[in-house]
Amino acid sequence: MINSRAYESLEERFARVRVLEDVAGILGWDAQAIMPVGAASERAKQLAVLRGLAHEVLTSSDVPDLLDDADAQRARLDPWQSANLREMRCAFVHAAALPQDLVVATSKATSHAEMVWREARRTSDFALLLPHLETVLDLQRETGQVKSEALGTSTYDALLDQYDPGLRQGCIDPLFDALRQELPVLIAEATERQHLASAPIPINGHFPVEAQRKLGETLMRAVGFDFTHGRLDISLHPFCGGATGDVRITTRYDEGDFTQSLMGVMHETGHALYEQGRPAAWASQPVGQARGMTLHESQSLLIEMQACRSPEFLAYLSPLLTDAFGREDPAWSPENLHRVYTRVQPGFIRVDADEVTYPAHILLRYDLEKAMIAGDLAVADLPAAFNSGMKALLGVTVPNDAQGCLQDIHWPSGAWGYFPTYTLGAIAAAQLFAAACSAERNIRTSFASGDFSPLVGWLRANVHAKGSLLGTDDVLTAATGKSLGLEAYRDHLRQRYLWRDLVT
Amino acid sequence: MINSRAYESLEERFARVRVLEDVAGILGWDAQAIMPVGAASERAKQLAVLRGLAHEVLTSSDVPDLLDDADAQRARLDPWQSANLREMRCAFVHAAALPQDLVVATSKATSHAEMVWREARRTSDFALLLPHLETVLDLQRETGQVKSEALGTSTYDALLDQYDPGLRQGCIDPLFDALRQELPVLIAEATERQHLASAPIPINGHFPVEAQRKLGETLMRAVGFDFTHGRLDISLHPFCGGATGDVRITTRYDEGDFTQSLMGVMHETGHALYEQGRPAAWASQPVGQARGMTLHESQSLLIEMQACRSPEFLAYLSPLLTDAFGREDPAWSPENLHRVYTRVQPGFIRVDADEVTYPAHILLRYDLEKAMIAGDLAVADLPAAFNSGMKALLGVTVPNDAQGCLQDIHWPSGAWGYFPTYTLGAIAAAQLFAAACSAERNIRTSFASGDFSPLVGWLRANVHAKGSLLGTDDVLTAATGKSLGLEAYRDHLRQRYLWRDLVT
Repeated sequence: MINSRAYESLEERFARVRVLEDVAGILGWDAQAIMPVGAASERAKQLAVLRGLAHEVLTSSDVPDLLDDADAQRARLDPWQSANLREMRCAFVHAAALPQDLVVATSKATSHAEMVWREARRTSDFALLLPHLETVLDLQRETGQVKSEALGTSTYDALLDQYDPGLRQGCIDPLFDALRQELPVLIAEATERQHLASAPIPINGHFPVEAQRKLGETLMRAVGFDFTHGRLDISLHPFCGGATGDVRITTRYDEGDFTQSLMGVMHETGHALYEQGRPAAWASQPVGQARGMTLHESQSLLIEMQACRSPEFLAYLSPLLTDAFGREDPAWSPENLHRVYTRVQPGFIRVDADEVTYPAHILLRYDLEKAMIAGDLAVADLPAAFNSGMKALLGVTVPNDAQGCLQDIHWPSGAWGYFPTYTLGAIAAAQLFAAACSAERNIRTSFASGDFSPLVGWLRANVHAKGSLLGTDDVLTAATGKSLGLEAYRDHLRQRYLWRDLVT
Repeated sequence: MINSRAYESLEERFARVRVLEDVAGILGWDAQAIMPVGAASERAKQLAVLRGLAHEVLTSSDVPDLLDDADAQRARLDPWQSANLREMRCAFVHAAALPQDLVVATSKATSHAEMVWREARRTSDFALLLPHLETVLDLQRETGQVKSEALGTSTYDALLDQYDPGLRQGCIDPLFDALRQELPVLIAEATERQHLASAPIPINGHFPVEAQRKLGETLMRAVGFDFTHGRLDISLHPFCGGATGDVRITTRYDEGDFTQSLMGVMHETGHALYEQGRPAAWASQPVGQARGMTLHESQSLLIEMQACRSPEFLAYLSPLLTDAFGREDPAWSPENLHRVYTRVQPGFIRVDADEVTYPAHILLRYDLEKAMIAGDLAVADLPAAFNSGMKALLGVTVPNDAQGCLQDIHWPSGAWGYFPTYTLGAIAAAQLFAAACSAERNIRTSFASGDFSPLVGWLRANVHAKGSLLGTDDVLTAATGKSLGLEAYRDHLRQRYLWRDLVT
């Protein structure tokens, strides 16, 4: 007999899962932002219990029948409920595919590998991490395999699907193959053109944390961040976290140079706007969550790269810097800020990379992680492969593993299949921004007066408020008229980095 | 058949309950210290889910059998395990006694009454709160009744037992009856004697929050607060909260007068030392928790009243104030600090009361809440009863209900049976301090050099490290050689407030 309240029962279950995830979100933020160091082991225990409870609710034995019963009555569901049911099944499939012992083994192995990684990176000692990374890889491969059976995908696609449901290697390859061809040419041309222009005046001075924080809050407010539902704090690794209705971003400050933290804050604000703009009526349900990491990264990069590195925004920013730091300085003229914030310089570190060279770091990691998951590249051979890739893609010679394959936490922490979403996000950001600027003609000019409402209004309607109603590519198609493609991204990079007028 | 692993199973259950309570502890701290205002309703939902989960674990259907089986095998338990089993049963009895609908009704009624109370206090409008307070009282009475059946006590004793297991009206009445006789005389004498001495030089100036915070941290470190397992932050209502291994205290700063916040920090540090000194091996179990609110309050008052208002401590503090605020000032000579910090002045507000008049506020509330629970005093008659009590006990005429019976959050929030522990704590603090000073002769003199280790070492051994191994009165008897009594408290007050040498 069919349970006529199956869908409603599922909503209750998933609301409870959401609460547990929100609680974990606050505790996770706390751990990175303000927790006293001695509390780490208790906190790990708390998070493990919360994750275990959420997993229990999600995979309790009657959920498959509830999903089937709700599916059988799908005709009575409205489009949001129907999409919610689809998202519930997706969450259930991912959770139920994993046997408990694999969950526990992964949790232990990644906690341990992360810890070892910190030491290995500090001492640039890949051999120290090697056995732990091998264990994590084996467990990731196993995760991909069991999920691939449940999802009917390849192993690597099953890993991708965790971060962006529906994302497949088949969607990525054409984009990344084209980039692999075009990027070295673009980097060379941009660098050459840059040599013809004057170098930026270096940013020098003492920029007190408190002044930087206040400026960051001013900019966040201008962009539309709601401080009654969020915070700005400090952590070693900047992130956007928190919970439903309580979106917390972090940054770290360098008192000798405000430029990186400032754009870091705008980047995280882009993530936060997405979180704050999700459909409130569905906040407790899967369909009310952000669509996936590609769109999430598109929102952070749209704000940081498309909006905040635009000449219009930098013209707005320039006098605010004078206010914030109590003096005028030619280093923060709009023109110089533009030179600083569009400087192209191949380097070793992904998170420090400029907009043009950044995708090279991702292409390399994408190739390497696919090869490792497939068993075509042994972990022991990773450093050599990494370094030769850096030479080929960016022409740089990696001096040591700390500045090479040990620089990122992703692999030791078990985030395989995550890297491509950074560059997919950058591509989507360009496409969304171009569509927004076509639809709302005053978007760019409004930046000059610190008015982001034309842009954010468009993003709210076309991305944020959709939650997970549609798939990633359907969101893009509805918003921009086409699937994810390179045109707008290519135009954006050429416009910003190869345009003749910039040679001043 | 008896489950031979019953005790071990219970330890696992209670460790899980502890984790959920720790999580709620961090979220509760967050809500009061740093949460953005718009997140309040989501936070309430999160805390309700966590409390519900803890309650589920605590009262799951096999717990009574596990308790019985473990009891039947008590011979194989060591004294800590045996005490742990006793504490488990106590927690179970309290939790299981309450029907689910009473829990839900209480949670709703108190949340609502608290909200209304804020407005009622702001506008001094008792009529606004009246119906809500009546509902809360009815539910508290019902709680007391169902628990009294489970515990075999009176209704009011069952409420007391929630905050201090084993505490009974029969223990309180002789102490409070004596105080009711002696206090008016003591207040009159102390006030008279004070008139003969010179008035304190008022504390005037601008005392920046950051300077106060640094000084507070310095003093906390001196007393032995471990910042690797705790924090100091700001909240409207100061408290000590957090989680296992992560003890977080708060204060609020007045930039025109540092004196209240400073002693407030020392008060909360007293609570925190207890939390940080609990037996680490039993941290996840009921027997590893603090004994109850009487001993907890004794630890905060021992630090604040006994230690930090002593002439020796104030001599240590005086030069630190000069350092902290960058100037010398006769207002913070040791002698003047002593006059400031031992000023007796009957007033309306409990939390602002001095050490001598404070118990009068408690005696009044104790009488009133007993009468209301017994049905001898209608809530509608509370303001008149409150005001006539204040006149009788302290000789003051309450100008309005905001400064009268609306001043405290306890009753609207459902904390009935809590008030007496404040004064019981003050009495216990005096008794413990006297015993400590007899056992360790250098306790007072060490304060003068900022060395609290003789005192804190004694407290660690005699109170903190005992956790809930013994009952409250057994802790006191083991530590001081006798049951809770008024001798040391009386001596302390006479010594500090009636001693001839203070007339200078």
